[in-house]
Amino acid sequence: MKIVIAPDSFKGSISAADAAAAIEQGIKRYWPQAETVKVPVADGGEGTLDSLIHAAGGQKVAAIVTGPLGQPVEAAYGLIGQDRLAAVIEMASASGLYLIAPEQRDPLAATTYGTGELIKQALDAGCREFILALGGSATNDGGAGMLQALGMKLLDASGGQVGWGGGALGGIAAIDDSAWDRRIAESRFLIASDVQNPFIGPKGASHVYGPQKGATPDIVQELERNMTVWADVIEAKTGTRVHELPGAGAAGGIGGAFLAFFPTTIKPGIEVVIHYSGLREHLQGADLVITGEGQIDFQTAFGKTPMGIALEAKKHNIPTVALAGSVGKGIESLHSLGITSVHSIVNGPMALQEAMDRAAELLELAAEQVVRTFMAANPQPRAKG
Amino acid sequence: MKIVIAPDSFKGSISAADAAAAIEQGIKRYWPQAETVKVPVADGGEGTLDSLIHAAGGQKVAAIVTGPLGQPVEAAYGLIGQDRLAAVIEMASASGLYLIAPEQRDPLAATTYGTGELIKQALDAGCREFILALGGSATNDGGAGMLQALGMKLLDASGGQVGWGGGALGGIAAIDDSAWDRRIAESRFLIASDVQNPFIGPKGASHVYGPQKGATPDIVQELERNMTVWADVIEAKTGTRVHELPGAGAAGGIGGAFLAFFPTTIKPGIEVVIHYSGLREHLQGADLVITGEGQIDFQTAFGKTPMGIALEAKKHNIPTVALAGSVGKGIESLHSLGITSVHSIVNGPMALQEAMDRAAELLELAAEQVVRTFMAANPQPRAKG
Repeated sequence: MKIVIAPDSFKGSISAADAAAAIEQGIKRYWPQAETVKVPVADGGEGTLDSLIHAAGGQKVAAIVTGPLGQPVEAAYGLIGQDRLAAVIEMASASGLYLIAPEQRDPLAATTYGTGELIKQALDAGCREFILALGGSATNDGGAGMLQALGMKLLDASGGQVGWGGGALGGIAAIDDSAWDRRIAESRFLIASDVQNPFIGPKGASHVYGPQKGATPDIVQELERNMTVWADVIEAKTGTRVHELPGAGAAGGIGGAFLAFFPTTIKPGIEVVIHYSGLREHLQGADLVITGEGQIDFQTAFGKTPMGIALEAKKHNIPTVALAGSVGKGIESLHSLGITSVHSIVNGPMALQEAMDRAAELLELAAEQVVRTFMAANPQPRAKG
Repeated sequence: MKIVIAPDSFKGSISAADAAAAIEQGIKRYWPQAETVKVPVADGGEGTLDSLIHAAGGQKVAAIVTGPLGQPVEAAYGLIGQDRLAAVIEMASASGLYLIAPEQRDPLAATTYGTGELIKQALDAGCREFILALGGSATNDGGAGMLQALGMKLLDASGGQVGWGGGALGGIAAIDDSAWDRRIAESRFLIASDVQNPFIGPKGASHVYGPQKGATPDIVQELERNMTVWADVIEAKTGTRVHELPGAGAAGGIGGAFLAFFPTTIKPGIEVVIHYSGLREHLQGADLVITGEGQIDFQTAFGKTPMGIALEAKKHNIPTVALAGSVGKGIESLHSLGITSVHSIVNGPMALQEAMDRAAELLELAAEQVVRTFMAANPQPRAKG
């Protein structure tokens, strides 16, 4: 009996790695001899770096870089792959919203410069393959700061270099790429992102994601005007029209900078994570997959972790049971896509906060009961009970 | 694939029969062709009558009898067995606490006369086999009213007949059985009761159950004095000393009256119910049993319905999955006794009232998911999903 344990994090409550550990505990309570493989999975958002390092057996490299508001921050990137030359860059590590206090959020000032520095350090370490997770950024600078960190000079009308942040984009008149890091052209960049938003417009970065980064309606208008100037400059320089390009609006427009200046592929987060997690190898010979996420409902069908895991397991005819803090409406649609069953970890009436506080314990209890039910129909001898 | 569905009621929320129907719905959502058998089970308390009639395929007979406070009430008894000559008498139907408003509770006045009338009607119908469920009585009359209804004259010191209720017992000086219904001696009475309390004393009927029937501390003392007089009179008449007899304190002391005047056997409620429910026959060829109750925890091991069901299923090596509104502490002990696994029907954080209001819907959803998980390991082809 081999069980693959591949949960996402339970948001606000427990990390994917801790969730996997709790599920494993529950399985072993019933069946100490069960073969278990933990593949904690994050779908490209926050936690992707740790999840990929854990799943792929990589290492984490600490790096002091420029934070979103210019202060130094202790960030990190990951090295995975057999030769440790594939870099995992989680943008939030250098330029994340979580790095600044809510009252200091300022998308006019926030820069992606630190993300560029992380890429530079990984290039220096020999990496030419990059996996990027873009979730949770504090920025709306269209990736300008990242380009600056990698040698691009962004010039105003008088030929001086502009400053940082979404507020500076409106002054950019030209791009000087004479000092641009030439190693980038030799590299491959794979962006894990489910964001389809364009660079500008009503569905663009400023309008959709600006407010959660601290932009008032007036500031959204200012950001949008500046991003439009910046988009035109990018088009003039590269020929790439990021304006309406799907995905260009990811993470305050850094998606557009990647698409215009880097050899870039964008793939859904869960596909990227599954590819690098080793899940496919671990599924060989498995009898059951247990996945999970804080909330599971009809939306889970649209690229969430449990769905990605189940689709992969289904290719091998392995059943996938999902554990959720809360099971919402419409899970019928998940069954036909490969999620065999969905069980809540909540084991009686309780408030949300209690369920979140007790997530590890509840996951352990639920996993044990699920495996007991699963095994009840299995002709294999049971270890106990 | 055959599934036996044998839940208890979910107290305060949904009857055993409705719970069984909801579970069946859930199973059929996944697998319309599954063979299901519903055996709703109540463990001898309230709901036993309906549950036994449903499970044993009997019929219900309406009867107007004397209610606990003398008013006429529409009660019922059941007829089961191939010849329909075994009567199921649920005492609460005639003498139940639920028949009177909380502010009218009066154990000094409340009588079991109506329960005696139910027995008399069943005797008239030809019954000589009786199954009695004693839960939920409003009375503390030591079964005196029941005896009166069946012809026993309870006389005071001056030779007149005493009135009804626990307040009248202190005046009883002698018993005249000249008009006692002789058919009782030809009958068998099986009491389904888990109550081990004696007739009198600190663990007797008045002290333990008097307060919930409306007795103040002073009234408890009065009831206890009267019950002691009545116990002495019973001993003088029958030679049976009910005073300390385990079970004699059931249902306000009606247990003592049965033990002294009727050919009576007392068995744990769940044993009686399982015997008459046909569960043993239904378990033949079954692959899975689904049981359930509102609360499942370590106490479930002590004679509760899910435990009784699981013990029976275990004899046939059939796994039993239990569904609960709330899963409490200590369920480890249940696994070794035969409950394969326990799943909560609560599918996310919610208040108790919501869980109770939505019990049918939640049971249906949970049952479907449990069967999906159970079947995932089963080599049989699945109907869909």
